[in-house]
Amino acid sequence: MRMVDVIMNKRNGKQLTEEEIRFFIEGYTEETIPDYQVSALLMAIYYKGMTEKETAVLTQAMVDSGDTIDLSPIVGSKVDKHSTGGVGDKTTFIVGPLVASVGVPVAKMSGRGLGHTGGTLDKLESIEGFKIEMTEQEFIDNVNKYKLAVAGQTGNLAPADKKLYALRDVTATVDSIPLIAGSIMSKKLASGADSIVLDVKTGSGAFMKSIENSEALAKEMVTIGKNLGRNTVAIISDMNQPLGFEIGNANEVKEAVEVLQGKKVNDLRELALALASHMTVLAKTFASYDEAYKVLEENLENRKAFEAFRSFVGAQGGDVSMIDDLTKLPSSKHQVEVKAETDGYVTAIDAESIGIAAMYLGAGRATKDDKINHGVGITLKKKIGDEIKAGEALAVLLSDTTSPTDSIEKVLNAYEISSNSLGEKTLIYKVIQ
Amino acid sequence: MRMVDVIMNKRNGKQLTEEEIRFFIEGYTEETIPDYQVSALLMAIYYKGMTEKETAVLTQAMVDSGDTIDLSPIVGSKVDKHSTGGVGDKTTFIVGPLVASVGVPVAKMSGRGLGHTGGTLDKLESIEGFKIEMTEQEFIDNVNKYKLAVAGQTGNLAPADKKLYALRDVTATVDSIPLIAGSIMSKKLASGADSIVLDVKTGSGAFMKSIENSEALAKEMVTIGKNLGRNTVAIISDMNQPLGFEIGNANEVKEAVEVLQGKKVNDLRELALALASHMTVLAKTFASYDEAYKVLEENLENRKAFEAFRSFVGAQGGDVSMIDDLTKLPSSKHQVEVKAETDGYVTAIDAESIGIAAMYLGAGRATKDDKINHGVGITLKKKIGDEIKAGEALAVLLSDTTSPTDSIEKVLNAYEISSNSLGEKTLIYKVIQ
Repeated sequence: MRMVDVIMNKRNGKQLTEEEIRFFIEGYTEETIPDYQVSALLMAIYYKGMTEKETAVLTQAMVDSGDTIDLSPIVGSKVDKHSTGGVGDKTTFIVGPLVASVGVPVAKMSGRGLGHTGGTLDKLESIEGFKIEMTEQEFIDNVNKYKLAVAGQTGNLAPADKKLYALRDVTATVDSIPLIAGSIMSKKLASGADSIVLDVKTGSGAFMKSIENSEALAKEMVTIGKNLGRNTVAIISDMNQPLGFEIGNANEVKEAVEVLQGKKVNDLRELALALASHMTVLAKTFASYDEAYKVLEENLENRKAFEAFRSFVGAQGGDVSMIDDLTKLPSSKHQVEVKAETDGYVTAIDAESIGIAAMYLGAGRATKDDKINHGVGITLKKKIGDEIKAGEALAVLLSDTTSPTDSIEKVLNAYEISSNSLGEKTLIYKVIQ
Repeated sequence: MRMVDVIMNKRNGKQLTEEEIRFFIEGYTEETIPDYQVSALLMAIYYKGMTEKETAVLTQAMVDSGDTIDLSPIVGSKVDKHSTGGVGDKTTFIVGPLVASVGVPVAKMSGRGLGHTGGTLDKLESIEGFKIEMTEQEFIDNVNKYKLAVAGQTGNLAPADKKLYALRDVTATVDSIPLIAGSIMSKKLASGADSIVLDVKTGSGAFMKSIENSEALAKEMVTIGKNLGRNTVAIISDMNQPLGFEIGNANEVKEAVEVLQGKKVNDLRELALALASHMTVLAKTFASYDEAYKVLEENLENRKAFEAFRSFVGAQGGDVSMIDDLTKLPSSKHQVEVKAETDGYVTAIDAESIGIAAMYLGAGRATKDDKINHGVGITLKKKIGDEIKAGEALAVLLSDTTSPTDSIEKVLNAYEISSNSLGEKTLIYKVIQ
């Protein structure tokens, strides 16, 4: 088989065979097929798409290109959650304990990566003593005992996907639904879960800006999951403004814990309950979404989910007193208000700009060697639909400097104030299953 | 400027700016832009095409990527001829002397390359003593004195085109009309001619199989030429069977010389006269095609063109007695007839198979280090429209072995014999100017 013929077949709109897709993925992983042939194929895929069958084979071939995690020593049905990425998204810290509180095991492997704020691991490290390094046995024991553990990712998962992603980034072939779906799903499948719940973000702050594209991506991923033997459900949720009010690291943990303690942060609480409900239904703990939702909501009220979080933090060496008294979490030296310049209603908050403002304060990582400042971040005071008067605070910057002018400007520009209210935004647009 | 943005613009169907095209061609030539980005762009061009303006800029940028030949010391209007490549095409040996015979200078630079038979240089080397190495001054002096000289190509012409062509070949991006047209025209423009006549072959033995595609390529090249200040005319000529009867090296020279001596080899003579007529009109030696054709035809009859060829061969050190007595040219040890198996009429002769059969005999070069055997080749005895009886010769193999079975089979399979005659093939389908 010759790679040039594989490219030509796709170029001419033919469905590639399983043999052709495996030939290309294996050859690329082993570096017998060069980048310049793969990028030509990726561009042909951009235009010609991939069928359901091709996408499933591609995903499985990427899984098979590296290590896979064996979660079989963990008792029960393992359900994973994945978000396509948004600003202020701390749902994992609520969803994990919620699901654990009804006995469904959550074995979360997480990476660090670059971003406006830290990743799941960085945020958890706001809690003093919290350790993410553990042996495979410790990890499994912890999940079996506490139903929840979070560890740094080990092993070489889906290396073909890593290589392809890097290549797509520099060849203008990122925006292809089958390639995006295959990329996400290959990592999830290599992580060993039995079922997967996907949170596909949509809107100005998301990778997918339109509901149509988000829905197409969600459908593609659900189809891949089903074709490869995993029950998969996708929620399409709003990212036209940050989720919750806190954007940063320690302050995001704080907001999540407050929800676990019963506080009603509307969008954040609602999304976490929805995701956890789907997860526990997929794990067959509940027969219906409504039944799951009811019990999980009770577990927020009665603090069972909070207790699950406390046990998990303690088990991984974290200082539990910081969870009981949230004022002990790292904080910034200064609090700087960003004030509205006109009266009106908030009609939009560009989530990406808010994320960048947080990164300017030191909450994120622009390069691999950057250090995260856990105490800094942004607290929104107004969200879409809220009324605002000139001079009132739109947001508070948790800053270690007294006048973080770049961040102030970014936040100010992120807010759109209008004389008419558009009302609140829909949170969950659709569920694909 | 970033290459990924150039790729994205073309991917999205935008017209690239001159700055973007020059950035990409210069960067690729200087190796600051990697193959994998260029191949993604090429695939986007395959799907989205290029406008007339983009194609002209691309071509000029490829010309500017290397050396250009300065033909200004040659007196008169320099007209070049280019064929897109066919089997048995020895028109250069007729067209050159014909054009020279009316005083129009022909300064031909030629390469060797790989092919079923040798290139122009290899074929000329069938004549003992013929030298293609000469200094620039000798070349110019020869053209000024004899109106015709053929030399090996010197200088680094259009290196960007060479790199692009090699990349297109392995990334399934060869079949793009603007890229093919730009590639051919960049080499022609770098060679310094004032006007260009193109012979675009069409049919089973040509790169372009359909008249529609051949016409599209011809139009694109003529447009490039005009946009870059060169008068350009294209003929679309038939390649559904080899041109003339001889395929090889010495035997092709022999057939061309016979035409120069007045022999009426219909298709070959007709095409050479047509090409030469267009060239001399572009050189403004004649006011009309018909006038040119009449004088050039006379110069075949009165042997003026033959004399021009004799002078040219002598001037480059060739043994002119071989031209006067064609039996002195290299020949093969054996002549092996390929006999028809059924009665009927010849309806098709697959030119590519005939070419491969000639290569099997030793007439061509499969790798750079192969040596050409000047005496071997194929003489067709029947062409399209001819009647044939079982046992009669379709062709004669000029072979150095007694039973070249692979070549016999190839030639036999190349012929299509039917009980009904389809008549003769059209030779010239169209002229684009």
